[in-house]
Amino acid sequence: MKTTKAIVKKTNTPNGLALEDVPFPTINHNEVLIKIKKTAICGTDIHIFNWDEWAQKTISTPQIMGHEFVGEVIETGMHVTNVKVGQLVSGEGHIVCGKCRHCITGFPHLCRQTIGIGVNMDGVFSQYIAFPASNLWVCDTSISQDIHSVSDPLGNATHTALSFNVLGEDVLVTGAGPIGLMSVPILKRAGARSIVVSDINPTRLELAKELGATTTVDVRHQTLADAITELGIIKEGFDVGLEMSGSGDAFSGMIDVMANGGKIAILGILPQNLQINWDKVIFNSLTLKGIYGRQMFDTWYRMTALLQSGLEEEITKIITHHFPYTDYAQAFELMQSGKSGKVILNWE
Amino acid sequence: MKTTKAIVKKTNTPNGLALEDVPFPTINHNEVLIKIKKTAICGTDIHIFNWDEWAQKTISTPQIMGHEFVGEVIETGMHVTNVKVGQLVSGEGHIVCGKCRHCITGFPHLCRQTIGIGVNMDGVFSQYIAFPASNLWVCDTSISQDIHSVSDPLGNATHTALSFNVLGEDVLVTGAGPIGLMSVPILKRAGARSIVVSDINPTRLELAKELGATTTVDVRHQTLADAITELGIIKEGFDVGLEMSGSGDAFSGMIDVMANGGKIAILGILPQNLQINWDKVIFNSLTLKGIYGRQMFDTWYRMTALLQSGLEEEITKIITHHFPYTDYAQAFELMQSGKSGKVILNWE
Amino acid sequence: MKTTKAIVKKTNTPNGLALEDVPFPTINHNEVLIKIKKTAICGTDIHIFNWDEWAQKTISTPQIMGHEFVGEVIETGMHVTNVKVGQLVSGEGHIVCGKCRHCITGFPHLCRQTIGIGVNMDGVFSQYIAFPASNLWVCDTSISQDIHSVSDPLGNATHTALSFNVLGEDVLVTGAGPIGLMSVPILKRAGARSIVVSDINPTRLELAKELGATTTVDVRHQTLADAITELGIIKEGFDVGLEMSGSGDAFSGMIDVMANGGKIAILGILPQNLQINWDKVIFNSLTLKGIYGRQMFDTWYRMTALLQSGLEEEITKIITHHFPYTDYAQAFELMQSGKSGKVILNWE
Amino acid sequence: MKTTKAIVKKTNTPNGLALEDVPFPTINHNEVLIKIKKTAICGTDIHIFNWDEWAQKTISTPQIMGHEFVGEVIETGMHVTNVKVGQLVSGEGHIVCGKCRHCITGFPHLCRQTIGIGVNMDGVFSQYIAFPASNLWVCDTSISQDIHSVSDPLGNATHTALSFNVLGEDVLVTGAGPIGLMSVPILKRAGARSIVVSDINPTRLELAKELGATTTVDVRHQTLADAITELGIIKEGFDVGLEMSGSGDAFSGMIDVMANGGKIAILGILPQNLQINWDKVIFNSLTLKGIYGRQMFDTWYRMTALLQSGLEEEITKIITHHFPYTDYAQAFELMQSGKSGKVILNWE
Repeated sequence: MKTTKAIVKKTNTPNGLALEDVPFPTINHNEVLIKIKKTAICGTDIHIFNWDEWAQKTISTPQIMGHEFVGEVIETGMHVTNVKVGQLVSGEGHIVCGKCRHCITGFPHLCRQTIGIGVNMDGVFSQYIAFPASNLWVCDTSISQDIHSVSDPLGNATHTALSFNVLGEDVLVTGAGPIGLMSVPILKRAGARSIVVSDINPTRLELAKELGATTTVDVRHQTLADAITELGIIKEGFDVGLEMSGSGDAFSGMIDVMANGGKIAILGILPQNLQINWDKVIFNSLTLKGIYGRQMFDTWYRMTALLQSGLEEEITKIITHHFPYTDYAQAFELMQSGKSGKVILNWE
Repeated sequence: MKTTKAIVKKTNTPNGLALEDVPFPTINHNEVLIKIKKTAICGTDIHIFNWDEWAQKTISTPQIMGHEFVGEVIETGMHVTNVKVGQLVSGEGHIVCGKCRHCITGFPHLCRQTIGIGVNMDGVFSQYIAFPASNLWVCDTSISQDIHSVSDPLGNATHTALSFNVLGEDVLVTGAGPIGLMSVPILKRAGARSIVVSDINPTRLELAKELGATTTVDVRHQTLADAITELGIIKEGFDVGLEMSGSGDAFSGMIDVMANGGKIAILGILPQNLQINWDKVIFNSLTLKGIYGRQMFDTWYRMTALLQSGLEEEITKIITHHFPYTDYAQAFELMQSGKSGKVILNWE
Repeated sequence: MKTTKAIVKKTNTPNGLALEDVPFPTINHNEVLIKIKKTAICGTDIHIFNWDEWAQKTISTPQIMGHEFVGEVIETGMHVTNVKVGQLVSGEGHIVCGKCRHCITGFPHLCRQTIGIGVNMDGVFSQYIAFPASNLWVCDTSISQDIHSVSDPLGNATHTALSFNVLGEDVLVTGAGPIGLMSVPILKRAGARSIVVSDINPTRLELAKELGATTTVDVRHQTLADAITELGIIKEGFDVGLEMSGSGDAFSGMIDVMANGGKIAILGILPQNLQINWDKVIFNSLTLKGIYGRQMFDTWYRMTALLQSGLEEEITKIITHHFPYTDYAQAFELMQSGKSGKVILNWE
Repeated sequence: MKTTKAIVKKTNTPNGLALEDVPFPTINHNEVLIKIKKTAICGTDIHIFNWDEWAQKTISTPQIMGHEFVGEVIETGMHVTNVKVGQLVSGEGHIVCGKCRHCITGFPHLCRQTIGIGVNMDGVFSQYIAFPASNLWVCDTSISQDIHSVSDPLGNATHTALSFNVLGEDVLVTGAGPIGLMSVPILKRAGARSIVVSDINPTRLELAKELGATTTVDVRHQTLADAITELGIIKEGFDVGLEMSGSGDAFSGMIDVMANGGKIAILGILPQNLQINWDKVIFNSLTLKGIYGRQMFDTWYRMTALLQSGLEEEITKIITHHFPYTDYAQAFELMQSGKSGKVILNWE
């Protein structure tokens, strides 16, 4: 039997990864065969690696990992018309039902029957994969393959940052992880007047500044309110907030410094026991909007347009490490340590 | 000294109301003198009456009560051009700064310097009041004075119900107090497909049905989810929710039954120790929007247009009692008992 | 060879229709076989019947006519998952490319590569048809088949009427043909305060009133401006306009009576030599929006929700005649005469 | 009698300007007295100077000219609270009624009773002026006075450029006069992917490029369609168009090259005998939106935020000449010649 190499979560324990020979994929009429060029490691992959509570109740081992990729189409199913052999592609990791109200009215990212590639089924950390054609995005080859391999988190950042009009507005980003960092130059290019980034990691805050943040706040040493007063950049509070940290304290603190009528997009996964000041939400007329995934494919379209307008240069700075796929163990260890930006595995 | 009668909160204790002779008001260049015809009692007035925690930290006695009214203009200041002597008027109870970003860009209801009439200053439960002209709404005299006297809560209901597009949508209203009830026929007239109302008061739920609710759920006996399944009216969950109860349980329960991408407008004052399922907010892409007051004066305009289209008939059913102002004590007692809809005081 | 009956445009001349035996359709993996129950005759079909300039340059004879239908699924292709055998279906008459920006971002009605069923390819006036599954709409069987057979024009009316928020607004509809008439109860259900309909056909204006128009104007005898003054219903002009007549005079007249900031949706095909008062467009800040087809499938969803809320009763009044398909000649003649509302052909 | 110097349109003939001593202004309770620092000459002023058809039917001589200015508050009326003596201010040149629906719902720029300063009443080309306080904008003194003096046209550009979301979009600007030029860096800062500017003046097109245009088209030598094909930057047509030329040919040409669903904001005054291809408007689902003035004061707020973000540098390049006010004749002549960008008169 023909096989291909893949990184597989083998055991129901922490780590438990292995590089294995798996059956070479076959495609149906609506799928394409892709030769993987690069993949990137997501926070979700680290959850699976760590075998945390969420992973334990979600993942069925053994399973091929990963959902962030770029590759080349080498074969297409007979009903496929949107991509051609030889094209460079990345893809949307959520397979939707195609039948529900949301799917047929232009909001498939709201589908309740979503299946996550690399989560609810085998993923893309492999030399060759079969992929549904309708989930593909044909890449602009003038943009680097590195960038295309992080389309998924860059799409998260784009979806979140463009949730509300930021032109001329003062924006707070809580959390300077890779997606928080990616949002900074997007906000800048969307016309934000000031972008304040908070975190507890000085290195990341430094990078946020380099990427265009007006100022940064290390909340271990300063309150947001003090920082803002000191800087004198915000009058009534922030007009828009992006919650990218998953920290209850960060989110509560954000609510305290929003302008009346302020709007918050929440991408970070918040703790379930979180209590916020609902009086501020109600009396200050705040809007809180949960964000999940990417709009198919409006987010992809605008993300590409931004990259073509120069965003590529900034995002490149957030990709800090590359490994051959055979060194996956080292890559996961680094990613887990928190001492990196995005980490990429090369497959050829 | 010329005087006029007014209902005054006298003491820093529960009840403590008195009908007193107060100085006859004088007006400045930008104000008008109004002879009050009818006033209505708000939930806020009951908080002051009860002298609860909020009232204790907010109200400075002695203070004339009330902010819901209709009256006739009997004198205008020299710079007043928007109203004339003889016109019937109601008015917006929030006085705004007129200078901040929100005030000058068309969103004065978001002003941070708002002063509440009958809360932070003397109110309208009096025979004669001075009122800032810019806060007045000239009434359509083809609509009853009763209706005009409840413009304030009707405006809350309108503001909340029109926060999101409901045409063809399935809507859940938690809480069938006066404002929750008012929202039902507004939702109907805005094209909602189904309107489900939940409460724990069978009389109010009955009235909700009469006002156009598709169905009602007494959450003491049924869960929302069960009720919906049984009725078979909702497929994916509610598209829009209006939180009108101030109950943490109601709000949590609402979040559980929203469709992905669902939108919730929150008017009820939620408990500060509330914990909600943030995973549902984020992974289901919900939007939560705090609502306060009325949009000046878009809410007033659309509310009037709806009344002119027939809404008057339905709202009239929510006004259950009338008293002469001299019987204010009885009126407050009734209102406090929860055994009424809107209660009106007649001043002439 | 197995055959089925179909109404075919045979010759490049006026009329030139024939009822013929055509090959029984076969379906591919993504298609379904439908047994037609009812079809309706569209204005487009009359253009083809009359063989006017547009038809001459667009239609390749011989071609099966028609695109408005309701039928039953009797077979499904192997990749079809959204419909089942036995379901009642209507369908969208525009086949889109599925690949362009608009198609993949939720706006397929804006696709440049659209192919019109019954226009650029064989249509649905037949006992049996093959139809792309992705274009189907599963019908709510609690609504009459008559109504489903006119989904296409009802969708046009819905798309146009919901182009702008009409809640509490004053709306002018120029043209009381079937689609103009359909828009009246939709506007009503969307909360319009007043709906004025203009035409030159007293019978149609009468029907408009019956369907909920606040007033009607026969522009042969009255100007719009005079009618409005006389009626006293509009203060500053119309907030929203729906151009449904295709008359340059009607459209020009509409522009004259719009409020500043007014919004016009244009469905009628306007004459190419039309000159309008651009100063009014610019200085009065008007918005003009061209409307084509239906939003796939948001229009279908909301149209269905409206029908479920009671719209069915009103639309039924616009369907004036039924014929067995064998009497197609009579049906076309009647439709062409302008002395009917919608005309339906029964196929079983 | 105390007097001040002013530039006055004296006669109902071309030119007819004079520098005269006029009565020193007095202020009422709601006005402020301003010492003018700089004024700029608008295209409207040139119409008055030329005494063209529009001017003949609009202007009543003698009248002080001008509406673009920056100055210092030197006295405030007793009811004025939004500005203080000593503050630098510019102002909105449209005085609105304050009573109509638009004025009280946040859209005063749509008021039907607008009075134009320097058009329907005396203007600001004077050493001292009285000005309604509610029309003032307090200037950020970190931005140059030159820039503040052109707030009016910069506001037109901002209002037009921000009429539609341009993030990631391809935008066509027809007309590279001062306002067309100003729109280029605004579009850039709002995230447009490509900005194509057309005109027939090579110098202006050169400046457009310098300000950030992706490419420019001299329509005397190239069609838009050819230029775009050659450049390969646009696939389906332009997503957004800004008509800034007032040329019927430019506008017609724009309609031909718009993407389906494209949106056009029209600021240029179009010829009344213009015929456009309405089929393209309707079948391609285009939106045409007339633009007038500036949104009070959302446009001013966002314009200021953009200037604070760096726009100042680009706009400065569009200001080409300065004259002392005593050389007004020379300044008008230059402006009329078309051989300049914005021309500023210094008053101190």
